[in-house]
Amino acid sequence: MMRSNPSEAPTRRSDGEQTHAAILASAMALASVEGLGGLTIGRLADALGLSKSGVYAHFRSKRRLQLEVIGAAREVFTREVIEPGLAAPEGVGQLRGLCEAFLDYIRREVFPGGCIFAGLLSEFDAQPGPLHDEVASDQGEWLGLLRQATQRACELGEFEGDVEPEQVAFELHAALEMANYLYVLHHDPTVLDRARVAIDAAVRRASRQPRGRNHAPGERPECPK
Amino acid sequence: MMRSNPSEAPTRRSDGEQTHAAILASAMALASVEGLGGLTIGRLADALGLSKSGVYAHFRSKRRLQLEVIGAAREVFTREVIEPGLAAPEGVGQLRGLCEAFLDYIRREVFPGGCIFAGLLSEFDAQPGPLHDEVASDQGEWLGLLRQATQRACELGEFEGDVEPEQVAFELHAALEMANYLYVLHHDPTVLDRARVAIDAAVRRASRQPRGRNHAPGERPECPK
Repeated sequence: MMRSNPSEAPTRRSDGEQTHAAILASAMALASVEGLGGLTIGRLADALGLSKSGVYAHFRSKRRLQLEVIGAAREVFTREVIEPGLAAPEGVGQLRGLCEAFLDYIRREVFPGGCIFAGLLSEFDAQPGPLHDEVASDQGEWLGLLRQATQRACELGEFEGDVEPEQVAFELHAALEMANYLYVLHHDPTVLDRARVAIDAAVRRASRQPRGRNHAPGERPECPK
Repeated sequence: MMRSNPSEAPTRRSDGEQTHAAILASAMALASVEGLGGLTIGRLADALGLSKSGVYAHFRSKRRLQLEVIGAAREVFTREVIEPGLAAPEGVGQLRGLCEAFLDYIRREVFPGGCIFAGLLSEFDAQPGPLHDEVASDQGEWLGLLRQATQRACELGEFEGDVEPEQVAFELHAALEMANYLYVLHHDPTVLDRARVAIDAAVRRASRQPRGRNHAPGERPECPK
């Protein structure tokens, strides 16, 4: 279902570890499509054509399976989005870098059902419990990265000093999540460009304006290349 | 679970119809929290303390229950969001009116798990089938309302003529959905104001600028009252 195996690791692993990682990769793909709530050991065994007892031996409980899926998905997200995003120069560079890496991760369909964390947010936002807390923590971390990059842009003088990092993080995250949901719904890459225009507008609005030079009336932000 | 019964109708109904409507109201509340995929006749009967056969008599199948929940939720959304939003003057008035009515519907917690359509979008975006198509249709209708109000604002000269209605609709919808998810996650009304600032910025960016008068450097959009 996935174009590449998101659990592939550079270190050499035993057969048992490789099987475990392969099952987890399929579980992530399945959870991105169907949600994590319905991801039981039986459902996963069915989807993989394995025996229930074989999958059970790897995870022992639905809860442990769910938490391992979240942990593995965090590794994928770090490798596919956070690391490439933070490779850009700090400040506005990293802010745009994180957004572009996210949109690229959607477009490459790293998970067949789109960003697994966007799905988890909607699935567990209203259900108290350990999965809700994991989701809240993941959302907080991602928003925190966008906020810190904004804060750094203010310190570097790229953004106006009175810009609210929390507001910028909210707007960028909103555009990215909406692009994710609509891309998965229709597979139309136009929505990724809609997100780019929205992100560019938010960045321009926050940017320090040269004194005495404003945008001309009717000037529109351009889609960044 | 809900503060008011969203299926309450002004016309007089038989006992059977009232029971049916009451079960549907509970089903909507449950689906907004747990999703629609897991909403079986058995789960609903458990949640209501009714017999499975009693609930079965009303819906006959899980699929019919799910489709009736979507239909009933559409009526609630129309009454709580679309009608009050469209009561504003056409153009920018209706655009802001629809957004404010949506935020008010979130804040009043009409559904305990937040906007049921936001949940459905994430739940069924990647799963082909009748529920995916219902969700795509609902998303299309809501985006269409925002697009039409934007188009009318262009025709009325409130917005610049080259504004892209699809882009404005995307940005407003993104801010509203993110406010919904984060409000349900943390119950912090600050996120509703973050959405208002984002919406105001998008509206100002699209607005016709008086010739020779630009925003001052560093001027920030204000949160509308």
